[in-house]
Amino acid sequence: MPRQIAVIGAGKGGKEVEKLAEEVGREIAMSGSILICGGLGGVMEAAARGAKEKGGMTVGILPGTDRSEANEYIDIKIVTAMSHARNAIIARTADALIAVGGGHGTLSEIALGLKSGKRVVVLEVNASLADVKGALLAKTPREAVEMALGGASAGYI
Amino acid sequence: MPRQIAVIGAGKGGKEVEKLAEEVGREIAMSGSILICGGLGGVMEAAARGAKEKGGMTVGILPGTDRSEANEYIDIKIVTAMSHARNAIIARTADALIAVGGGHGTLSEIALGLKSGKRVVVLEVNASLADVKGALLAKTPREAVEMALGGASAGYI
Amino acid sequence: MPRQIAVIGAGKGGKEVEKLAEEVGREIAMSGSILICGGLGGVMEAAARGAKEKGGMTVGILPGTDRSEANEYIDIKIVTAMSHARNAIIARTADALIAVGGGHGTLSEIALGLKSGKRVVVLEVNASLADVKGALLAKTPREAVEMALGGASAGYI
Amino acid sequence: MPRQIAVIGAGKGGKEVEKLAEEVGREIAMSGSILICGGLGGVMEAAARGAKEKGGMTVGILPGTDRSEANEYIDIKIVTAMSHARNAIIARTADALIAVGGGHGTLSEIALGLKSGKRVVVLEVNASLADVKGALLAKTPREAVEMALGGASAGYI
Repeated sequence: MPRQIAVIGAGKGGKEVEKLAEEVGREIAMSGSILICGGLGGVMEAAARGAKEKGGMTVGILPGTDRSEANEYIDIKIVTAMSHARNAIIARTADALIAVGGGHGTLSEIALGLKSGKRVVVLEVNASLADVKGALLAKTPREAVEMALGGASAGYI
Repeated sequence: MPRQIAVIGAGKGGKEVEKLAEEVGREIAMSGSILICGGLGGVMEAAARGAKEKGGMTVGILPGTDRSEANEYIDIKIVTAMSHARNAIIARTADALIAVGGGHGTLSEIALGLKSGKRVVVLEVNASLADVKGALLAKTPREAVEMALGGASAGYI
Repeated sequence: MPRQIAVIGAGKGGKEVEKLAEEVGREIAMSGSILICGGLGGVMEAAARGAKEKGGMTVGILPGTDRSEANEYIDIKIVTAMSHARNAIIARTADALIAVGGGHGTLSEIALGLKSGKRVVVLEVNASLADVKGALLAKTPREAVEMALGGASAGYI
Repeated sequence: MPRQIAVIGAGKGGKEVEKLAEEVGREIAMSGSILICGGLGGVMEAAARGAKEKGGMTVGILPGTDRSEANEYIDIKIVTAMSHARNAIIARTADALIAVGGGHGTLSEIALGLKSGKRVVVLEVNASLADVKGALLAKTPREAVEMALGGASAGYI
């Protein structure tokens, strides 16, 4: 049964962060896992684009009322109409979460993921994010996905 | 872009109703659409089984806190941890809904689907369900899916 | 401990229906119960106005993102930002629900209330609503509140 | 119109933290504001007890399916049946949030509060919480409530 791995991060990520997110998406697809994300732009779109490039399956858990807000790389569009509360659904739906950049929304997903007992991996680029106790720190996209899948020695932050 | 068609109905459907649901699932898959359902047993499981038999894609929008509650025919498991409020997500996520049997939970999904402006088709077997103004009545699984896809002349109840 | 009684109905109710809703609100307040509603206009506003007239407490469970959408008779404003999914919260929060007029949104609340095992009373004016199995039929606002509180002999529809 | 101020923190707070939460609850009530909280034990119960001691109004936004899980100091019991997603409702319902101790659940509420544009005040005792950019730091319960109400000079963390 394939894993469901979430990539979380800002709707406007910046070039460096989006490049990393795209690579995370590729690695998730190559591992045979399903990519879960918030379905919008920035980091979410970059990760989904990376996953589709490698033939993966992508799921967008959208905050609004209309599936048309999904980016073009989303296969399955879940329309929650629940604004930020959809972050709790992302945290529950994922077996593990990987944060690539991001602000308060991403921080809420990290916290909800840990609260739900999920493995949460933070890519090192996230200097602006608070160091959250319990999250794992990864240096590269590949290491992040390996940690998310539980196959790497992981140093707790 | 494939349509997302929901099949709604009781977690314990009875043999006749589940046979119909399975046929609806097959027709959805054969139309190239994605099957959305509540992910549990009864009508939901029968529809998902039918869809998988024809190589379709299935999504379960689960009410509980754990993806293990999904039936074995679900490809994508959305874990809402929101009990009945997940019915509103099913109504929003689907382009159209097809009711096969069901009780109060199904009635809430029919109502939420219509409230969200979606096409709602009720299979004729649903004598126990209230006739809801605005829903469409179908006589066979094939007719139900055709109506859901908008390709059949549809008589309003 | 005071009961929490919900009044449900359309945001645009029409004069007759709103007059009934206001009377239901008065009766709820006079029984010492807390009025729960969706917090918007029409039936919700009329019921809250009636309750405040008699010194009752009113709670609005709002669908949008801003407490300013509450009508002026709401004491406690719960901002769900969850659109129709807030109907499930109304159904869970109320000990009993009273429907005064209404359309598909109200029907979803009736169904969710019954699904959650709550007593649901429908005022007879609701000809446009489907007769829902399990709901109780009341002829007057006073009878509706008595039924909601469990103090009247109630004939199942 | 009274303000709605949330107190957030762990369900098991420890004596020192609960003493502070109780004092925050008293200050909220004395300011004429309504106390919003998660409705359970620990910090939530201590804050509600403080507010009731001073004649305030208390609202519990509960995660489970039953109002009986509310602590005895809660006047209005909102039953969400939405597990952690109720944290997003707390963040939206409050005009401002005050964190007293807490773990990942509280961190998610801080982040969701800031994401929703709310003023978030953290009591200094929260050494275990990550310093979150955008949150305000208060030294005493009184200062926390003054900051929450916008009446104190506030130094950003």
